[in-house]
Amino acid sequence: MSSGRRALVVGTGLIGGSVGLALRAQGWHVTGRDLDEARAARAVELGALDAVGDDGDADITFVATPVGSVASEARRALEGRGVVTDVGGVKSPIVNAVADPRFVGGHPMAGSEQEGVDGADASLFEGATWVLTPTDDTDPSAYAEIRNVVSSLGADVVALRPEDHDELVALVSHVPHLTAAALMSTAAAGAEEHAAVLRLAAGGFRDMTRVAAGHPGIWLDICAENRGAIVAGIDGLQSALSEMRALVDGGDRDGLLAWLERARAARVNLPTTAPRPEELAEIRVPVPDRPGVIAEVTTLVSELGVNMFDLETVHSAEGGGVFVFLVDAAAADLVRGALLARHYKPSAQRLA
Amino acid sequence: MSSGRRALVVGTGLIGGSVGLALRAQGWHVTGRDLDEARAARAVELGALDAVGDDGDADITFVATPVGSVASEARRALEGRGVVTDVGGVKSPIVNAVADPRFVGGHPMAGSEQEGVDGADASLFEGATWVLTPTDDTDPSAYAEIRNVVSSLGADVVALRPEDHDELVALVSHVPHLTAAALMSTAAAGAEEHAAVLRLAAGGFRDMTRVAAGHPGIWLDICAENRGAIVAGIDGLQSALSEMRALVDGGDRDGLLAWLERARAARVNLPTTAPRPEELAEIRVPVPDRPGVIAEVTTLVSELGVNMFDLETVHSAEGGGVFVFLVDAAAADLVRGALLARHYKPSAQRLA
Repeated sequence: MSSGRRALVVGTGLIGGSVGLALRAQGWHVTGRDLDEARAARAVELGALDAVGDDGDADITFVATPVGSVASEARRALEGRGVVTDVGGVKSPIVNAVADPRFVGGHPMAGSEQEGVDGADASLFEGATWVLTPTDDTDPSAYAEIRNVVSSLGADVVALRPEDHDELVALVSHVPHLTAAALMSTAAAGAEEHAAVLRLAAGGFRDMTRVAAGHPGIWLDICAENRGAIVAGIDGLQSALSEMRALVDGGDRDGLLAWLERARAARVNLPTTAPRPEELAEIRVPVPDRPGVIAEVTTLVSELGVNMFDLETVHSAEGGGVFVFLVDAAAADLVRGALLARHYKPSAQRLA
Repeated sequence: MSSGRRALVVGTGLIGGSVGLALRAQGWHVTGRDLDEARAARAVELGALDAVGDDGDADITFVATPVGSVASEARRALEGRGVVTDVGGVKSPIVNAVADPRFVGGHPMAGSEQEGVDGADASLFEGATWVLTPTDDTDPSAYAEIRNVVSSLGADVVALRPEDHDELVALVSHVPHLTAAALMSTAAAGAEEHAAVLRLAAGGFRDMTRVAAGHPGIWLDICAENRGAIVAGIDGLQSALSEMRALVDGGDRDGLLAWLERARAARVNLPTTAPRPEELAEIRVPVPDRPGVIAEVTTLVSELGVNMFDLETVHSAEGGGVFVFLVDAAAADLVRGALLARHYKPSAQRLA
C-alpha cells in the first residue's frame, strides 16, 4: 500500500535502518542520511531507504545518531514542517536542549544506535517497549502523531517525563551495564593469579557479563549525559551490596533468605512483553487547550502500569480537544479514577 | 555394554540423577538414595538408578546432597570400600571435614543440586567444567579413578586446591549471584515510585538478573560455608564500582573508556567450552610415593590453563609411580617446563 507519507531518518545504523525498513513496509517514502555516506548507501541497498538525502517535507523525522549529536540534528530537522523524535538512551539533556513543541524525545528499548545497519530488521521493535517523553510544552497533536507512528512499528509506548526516564534507565540499564564490566574486571583480576578462574565461569556469569562485551563507545556519551542518575544508581547498588555483605558476614540466614526471596519475587514478576489485552475500553478525556496536558495524562497512565493503545487527539471547534485512547478493559476503572482525581472528566466505554 | 562397575548416588536431584543416567548409559550398576523417598523412586522410574538403597560395594560414590549434609554423607559412604566424591558448590569446609585419602571434593559447573530430578539429563556435563580438589592427603589412585569417571561423563576436569576453588567461585558465581539480587532489589525499589520502571527492563537487565529467580535456599548454605571468600569478593566488587563511580562523576572519558575496554577484552576472551585439542602429547611424570604429589601436579597444570585428559597412575614395583596424562601438544613444552621447575623429571611425547 502507498500512503504518500514521508519520513526522514538521520543516522542509518541498526535503529535508523530498522525504522526505515518498517516504515517502507507500510508504504512510507523514507529518505535518510548518515555522516558515513557508505552507511547511508548501504541502507538504500538493504531496502531501508528510498533515497539518500534530506527531506524538508517529511511528516516525521527519526534522529537515530549517537546521543551527543541528537540535539543539533533535531534542531536541523525542525526547520522542516514535520514532527521530530529521536532514539537516544538519555532524554533530559536532549529534550531540554531542543525545547520545541514539535519534538518529543524517544527511546526504543531494543538494539543500539551504534550497531551496524546490516543487522537492521523491520520487526526489531515488535513487542519492545518504546519510551516517549512529552513535556509541558509538547504539542498534543505532535505527540499523538509520533506515538501512532511508533505504535505502528509494533512497539509498546510508555510515556515518561524525561527526568524520570533517565533515572529509571540508570537503574535498569546504565548501572547494570557498568556492574557487568565491574564483575568482569574483578574476575579478570582474579585470573591473573589463577588462570583457571575463567574456566569456572558458567552460564550465570556469562549471562551477567554478556553486555560488557559490547563496544564501549556508546557508554561514554551516556555516562556523560546521565551522570547524576548513574552516580545515584551506583550509590543505591552499593548500599544494597553493603546490606548483603553484612548479612553474609554476620551469618544472618533469616535476613539473607528474606532478602533473596524479595529479589526472587521481583525477578519472577518482571513483566514480559506487554500483552495485548483481551478486551479493550475506550477512554475519552476532554482536555483544555493548555500546555502540559498531554504529558500529564500520558505519564499518569504509564505510572499506573497501564498500556495505552491507539491514541488520537480530536480537536473541537471551541479550542479544546478530546484525547481518545484504548486501554485494557480491566484497567479502565483504575485509569478513569486516576484521571478524575486530577480533575479531568473522562468517560470510559468497553469496546464490543 | 556391561562392565560390572558399581556406583552409589546419594541425593537424587538434577545432578545426582544426571550422574546416574550417564553412568548407566555406560553400563554401570547404579544404586541411589535420597532423604525424599519419592524422589529416589522417581529416579528409578526415569532410568537414573537401577535400585534404591545403599551399596557398600560401590566402586565410586557421588554425594549430591545440599552442601550442609555432604560431609556426613561422605563419611558414611567411606565405610564402604570405594572412592567418594561430591558435587557441592563450596569445597574447603567439606574437604577439611571429611579428610580422607579416598575422598576428593568435586564441583560440576552445571545445574544445581537442588533442582528436580525430572530435569536430569545424561548429557548435562558434556563440555562442562568439573572442578576436583585433591589435597596433600589424597590417594593418587583414588584421584585418578574419580577423575576418569568424571571425564567419562563428558566433563572437562580442572584440578584446584579446595581453598582456591572457593575463592574463585566466589568471584564467578557467588558474588555475581548476590549482585543479581542486589540489582533486582534496587530496580524493584525504584518500581515502588514508578510502576513503569520494570517495563523498561530490556534484554541486558533480564540476562543479568535471571539467576536471581532461582530458589534462594541453596545460597544460605553457600553463604555460610564460603563466608570469607564471598565477603572478600563483595569488597573487590565494591572497590571496582567505586572506581567506576569516580570516573563517571569526574567526567573522565579516557579513564572510563580504558576501564570498559579492559572489561570488554576480558569478556570477549572468556573461554568457551574447552576444545579437544587437534593433537595430543603424552606427559609421563615419575613421582615419589609421598603425600601431596597428585595435588601439586594437577593443580599446577590447571593453573597454567591447560586441560589434562585421560589421567592414570602407573605404580612401579619400587614403591613410587608414574603419572601419565595427555595435554594439547601445543602446551606440552609449557607443562614440561613448569614440572621441571618444580624438580619433577617429566617426559613428553607427541602422539601420532
